[in-house]
Amino acid sequence: MITEKPFYLEQANELLIAKTAYHNRLPILLKGPTGCGKTRFMQRLAWELARPLITVSCHDDLSTSDLVGRFLIKGGEAVWMDGPLTTAIRAGAICYLDEIVEARKDTTVVIHPLADDRRELPIEKLGETLSAPPEFMLAISYNPGYQSVLKDLKQSTRQRFVSFEFNYPTPELEASIVQEESGIEHQLALKLVRLAAMTRSLKDSGLQEGASTRLLIHAGKLIKSNIPPRTACKAAITETLTDDHEMLAALEEMSNSLF
Amino acid sequence: MITEKPFYLEQANELLIAKTAYHNRLPILLKGPTGCGKTRFMQRLAWELARPLITVSCHDDLSTSDLVGRFLIKGGEAVWMDGPLTTAIRAGAICYLDEIVEARKDTTVVIHPLADDRRELPIEKLGETLSAPPEFMLAISYNPGYQSVLKDLKQSTRQRFVSFEFNYPTPELEASIVQEESGIEHQLALKLVRLAAMTRSLKDSGLQEGASTRLLIHAGKLIKSNIPPRTACKAAITETLTDDHEMLAALEEMSNSLF
Amino acid sequence: MITEKPFYLEQANELLIAKTAYHNRLPILLKGPTGCGKTRFMQRLAWELARPLITVSCHDDLSTSDLVGRFLIKGGEAVWMDGPLTTAIRAGAICYLDEIVEARKDTTVVIHPLADDRRELPIEKLGETLSAPPEFMLAISYNPGYQSVLKDLKQSTRQRFVSFEFNYPTPELEASIVQEESGIEHQLALKLVRLAAMTRSLKDSGLQEGASTRLLIHAGKLIKSNIPPRTACKAAITETLTDDHEMLAALEEMSNSLF
Amino acid sequence: MITEKPFYLEQANELLIAKTAYHNRLPILLKGPTGCGKTRFMQRLAWELARPLITVSCHDDLSTSDLVGRFLIKGGEAVWMDGPLTTAIRAGAICYLDEIVEARKDTTVVIHPLADDRRELPIEKLGETLSAPPEFMLAISYNPGYQSVLKDLKQSTRQRFVSFEFNYPTPELEASIVQEESGIEHQLALKLVRLAAMTRSLKDSGLQEGASTRLLIHAGKLIKSNIPPRTACKAAITETLTDDHEMLAALEEMSNSLF
Amino acid sequence: MITEKPFYLEQANELLIAKTAYHNRLPILLKGPTGCGKTRFMQRLAWELARPLITVSCHDDLSTSDLVGRFLIKGGEAVWMDGPLTTAIRAGAICYLDEIVEARKDTTVVIHPLADDRRELPIEKLGETLSAPPEFMLAISYNPGYQSVLKDLKQSTRQRFVSFEFNYPTPELEASIVQEESGIEHQLALKLVRLAAMTRSLKDSGLQEGASTRLLIHAGKLIKSNIPPRTACKAAITETLTDDHEMLAALEEMSNSLF
Amino acid sequence: MITEKPFYLEQANELLIAKTAYHNRLPILLKGPTGCGKTRFMQRLAWELARPLITVSCHDDLSTSDLVGRFLIKGGEAVWMDGPLTTAIRAGAICYLDEIVEARKDTTVVIHPLADDRRELPIEKLGETLSAPPEFMLAISYNPGYQSVLKDLKQSTRQRFVSFEFNYPTPELEASIVQEESGIEHQLALKLVRLAAMTRSLKDSGLQEGASTRLLIHAGKLIKSNIPPRTACKAAITETLTDDHEMLAALEEMSNSLF
Repeated sequence: MITEKPFYLEQANELLIAKTAYHNRLPILLKGPTGCGKTRFMQRLAWELARPLITVSCHDDLSTSDLVGRFLIKGGEAVWMDGPLTTAIRAGAICYLDEIVEARKDTTVVIHPLADDRRELPIEKLGETLSAPPEFMLAISYNPGYQSVLKDLKQSTRQRFVSFEFNYPTPELEASIVQEESGIEHQLALKLVRLAAMTRSLKDSGLQEGASTRLLIHAGKLIKSNIPPRTACKAAITETLTDDHEMLAALEEMSNSLF
Repeated sequence: MITEKPFYLEQANELLIAKTAYHNRLPILLKGPTGCGKTRFMQRLAWELARPLITVSCHDDLSTSDLVGRFLIKGGEAVWMDGPLTTAIRAGAICYLDEIVEARKDTTVVIHPLADDRRELPIEKLGETLSAPPEFMLAISYNPGYQSVLKDLKQSTRQRFVSFEFNYPTPELEASIVQEESGIEHQLALKLVRLAAMTRSLKDSGLQEGASTRLLIHAGKLIKSNIPPRTACKAAITETLTDDHEMLAALEEMSNSLF
Repeated sequence: MITEKPFYLEQANELLIAKTAYHNRLPILLKGPTGCGKTRFMQRLAWELARPLITVSCHDDLSTSDLVGRFLIKGGEAVWMDGPLTTAIRAGAICYLDEIVEARKDTTVVIHPLADDRRELPIEKLGETLSAPPEFMLAISYNPGYQSVLKDLKQSTRQRFVSFEFNYPTPELEASIVQEESGIEHQLALKLVRLAAMTRSLKDSGLQEGASTRLLIHAGKLIKSNIPPRTACKAAITETLTDDHEMLAALEEMSNSLF
Repeated sequence: MITEKPFYLEQANELLIAKTAYHNRLPILLKGPTGCGKTRFMQRLAWELARPLITVSCHDDLSTSDLVGRFLIKGGEAVWMDGPLTTAIRAGAICYLDEIVEARKDTTVVIHPLADDRRELPIEKLGETLSAPPEFMLAISYNPGYQSVLKDLKQSTRQRFVSFEFNYPTPELEASIVQEESGIEHQLALKLVRLAAMTRSLKDSGLQEGASTRLLIHAGKLIKSNIPPRTACKAAITETLTDDHEMLAALEEMSNSLF
Repeated sequence: MITEKPFYLEQANELLIAKTAYHNRLPILLKGPTGCGKTRFMQRLAWELARPLITVSCHDDLSTSDLVGRFLIKGGEAVWMDGPLTTAIRAGAICYLDEIVEARKDTTVVIHPLADDRRELPIEKLGETLSAPPEFMLAISYNPGYQSVLKDLKQSTRQRFVSFEFNYPTPELEASIVQEESGIEHQLALKLVRLAAMTRSLKDSGLQEGASTRLLIHAGKLIKSNIPPRTACKAAITETLTDDHEMLAALEEMSNSLF
Repeated sequence: MITEKPFYLEQANELLIAKTAYHNRLPILLKGPTGCGKTRFMQRLAWELARPLITVSCHDDLSTSDLVGRFLIKGGEAVWMDGPLTTAIRAGAICYLDEIVEARKDTTVVIHPLADDRRELPIEKLGETLSAPPEFMLAISYNPGYQSVLKDLKQSTRQRFVSFEFNYPTPELEASIVQEESGIEHQLALKLVRLAAMTRSLKDSGLQEGASTRLLIHAGKLIKSNIPPRTACKAAITETLTDDHEMLAALEEMSNSLF
């Protein structure tokens, strides 16, 4: 349960649409690059809907049992233990499956009956089917930039969700976020945002991905703690983005042109 | 057990043929794209035959034990627990294996003796063979669009079933479905159906699959809740269908030409 | 134990040779396409030899333990439970391993000492070796059409068996089978056989496999239940054989030329 | 323990060399095609040395534990159970690992300290090392014809063994074996041997392997039981060797030229 | 807990930045070749921050459970046992995951909520979420030289860390380290450093990697123990770097030119 | 514990360097082809240092638990059982991991903290870290001839060891070894060594590896037991080296030219 209003600056009308989806009992899908605010958005949505938020970071070995639950041996007895998805349904919470495409395929299929108008979770090992209460919401996210033949979301999964594309905020908005979160001045924050824009323009011409807002906040915090800006940008941004020495030199030059 | 008559508009005479297959104790195979009504058809068939419906969403890790049953340790004893297929046989229910080709190969083979005139399920771990009562029916589905060398239905499996091809309904019929399910007016529903037709014509020239009826219902629900049509179509249809920015622009243009 | 004489029309002298192999304690190998009567042949052979028949449908995950047996925990004790192969040996039954090449490699090797003149099954987990009684017979089947580098029967396995090639029966014979099993008239059965012959001639030029006798029986049953012949052939035969729309049109044309 | 002298006709002086290796405590490696007498040779050698023979058919999933032993739960206790290799060492028996290259790699490595002058088997799970008594002998076999990059015997394994190449016996010798084992006349046996020679000459030009002596014995037994020679050769030899219809026709022609 | 000040010569201001990251509760990422002092740096940092250091060497089979903890059966009860990461959080220690890219993917994902501003570790099997105290620090390392498609750090992981690139120290500094650690004279240490520089210049033109500082210390220790320098360099450096005979000859020539 | 001085003829000063490494607490790496004396060298080194020798033959499935230890269920309790590496550390023994590259990757990483100046083995399942006493030594071996992309020793592993390359001894030395071990005369031993040299010159032009000293000893033993030299060389050397018939003919000709 989130008790303080999370800091989140809306980019369009994404909160309104998500709340409308919630009241129509439709699940949502967040798409977008790393560190651009998807997790924050979910925290804010949960706060606005006054529902608990249960986040699961998906990975290669995440199985259905990890989500739904499993039997554990206690005192010689097999005792059932709910997984985070089952817990979220029982509690009428919002369950957020972060980077769903990383999970094993069974995980994306187990949410199918939950993500259409049945809103049911079959718990095969208990031999029962759980109906989701109206308060429950399912949300998933994925990063289209990582999309591959092996790690794509099947159409039969996608076509159950209301979808949102997330992207980097506008420069002015992003600088406000960096200022708020790191405590540095607005002018300095704007310079960091400008550096980020440069790195983002290099995407697919050498850089796998540009600097996220989070990295700007890191750099801001180091600067606030008296690390010189160039040194802070090197540690928090450029060395974090790449290992390629030519690219590092190019990024450092950009940084030097600003600070 | 389905208690209310499920809303289903027949495309041809599929309900009659399926019921004839049922009375001849023949299993059925549903083929077709995602979200075009296969699940609804099964619900309606179960309601018409007055039999319980047990649905299993198949996936990569679905094993024979998940279907047939397994031993669990309870109080130091191994206690047998029926899987959904075994439960369906004992209850004389309809067992619907959704997207069967996603399952592990052993799963498709375990249904062989059940899907021919033997109508038996060998439960090797119990050392017994279960005979299906006349009331039991086996149904499977798969999406030929996803067919691949690795994920194809073997002829020795296929040639046990009576088969049905499902497709998108006619425009008039589809608009009626969207109207009924979302509560919007018929004219608006027809526009959504027209948008869907445009997306379906793009299949294989950039889109993996066109918009399903379900997505139209989602858009309808958002519009009914006062989200402007263009915004609703973007969130419920276009962003759900693809991540490609050029394709998104093309789809949005189509949407704008209608609303 | 099969109590009623199974309906089986001999194609050549396969029953005589199989019985001679049985009396010489030689195992047999059945080769041929799906649905052409291998399972029925085994049922008839078992009935003629008056031995019980134990059939195992092989699959990718079928392990030695599934065949030979395993320990189960009961009341804190590991209790041995015979697998179907061990049961067959102890009972002097006929053990029929259907589609053996689908099984894991260990399964094909475990039958080696059982399939040569030793006629022994080493049960490593019990530390004992079981000698097969003279009444026991081992039979395996496979479909050469599915043969691949990965799923081929090794020569060291093959060269232990007396082999039989199964194929579709002659038209007259096949029509008699369809008539007997579905209850339709002979003329209609002959038309179905003619349709089947057309589909079989398309094998490898678009169709993976032609219609089996079983599919003709399905169509016959639907027709007997008042489904019009063209509709019955579509559901029972053409839609079952392929998903390719051009091929479907071609098959439907063939069907229309007959009915 | 083999109680009757196994029928074996020596091809060269292989029994003498194997016995010399035994008395020098050197392990042996048998190479050669399927069904040419390797198993019989081992039975005869065991009989001549008056030692028990323990045969293990190796396969893809054969693990070290399958050979060495494992803990089983009995009455809540983990009870150790010797595998066949450990049993053979304790009993001073001959342990014959048939088709060793089929086994998992750990299996071929576990025999390394047993196959050099240490003659020891470390049983890691018991934390002890077993010394082989002078009576113990290790023998392995493999079929060079199946040799592949993945399934080759490593030089560090090979270079521990005294090696023997087995091949088909001379015609006169092979006919005597077929006569002895099937009970047919010598002239007929010679014809079968001639047919076998024809099939062996086709090796690598269409046939994976020629007919083994075992198949000739099978054909002989069927003929002895009044199956006509051509029919017997078809079932026991040609259909067993291949599924290719052109090759089958060629083989049948050969058979017809002889009978 | 490290009780003696570890010997570490700073290359730039890496200790200051790392301590600033620590006080801002930011995790750190160390990049660089093997044996250039990353482990020592962590030991020194832990000593300066007066926090215990828990190091985990990552590998292919390192699972989430290995890091987070697992249930063990004790006296018939499932008893939870913290893994090293959980232990580090509870103790407010520094947890150093060495060569993180070697670990299974689930391991890199499980640290995501711990590595951003949530600083939480969800322990799914206990159904609880652990909040890291301010004293806790997460550090990871990887070797960009080994980077591959399969073993790369995802951007969604990288973009949570403040990063440091480590490299070989300057000749004078490296000689001081070798002198200190092996006890040999400075002139001799300088010669070893010169040999190392030669090997490092061969990187990617035959050598996978140049000699690390650690190898120079090994050579120094052997020389200190009266092994002649050329022999010591051969055993400690050249034979350790490569198996290629031409490359070995070239390296030996270099060594001979110095000693 | 080795009680008799193992017969070992030093090729260079490898025993002295290894003992110096031992006294400097440095681990050692033995490189070289199969059967050239690495195992004997370790036995002699253990004898000279008067420490017990624990040898582990590594293989594909060797896991960390196999080396470090695992819990076993005894009387319903999980009882810890040291693996060979842990046993060696506690006993201050020499632990020799033979053919380390064959082991799973986790095995090579678990020795990292043990192979640098920490000399520690973290036993994660016990939650403790074991410090190696000064008496403990770690030794590993591998065969560079088998080196491949998949089975290479990582630089981060290599650069922790003092390395030794082993090769075949000089002819005079090798003949002395053969004479000593097999009991044949020196002249005959020299002839066997000459045959071995011929086979070694064929390496990479048809032979995977030349005859090891061990094979010469085998041939010598057979000759000593009155097997004619040519027959003995065929069984012990040529048939052991290869299955290729042309190569076998060439090797036999070499053998015939000598005996």
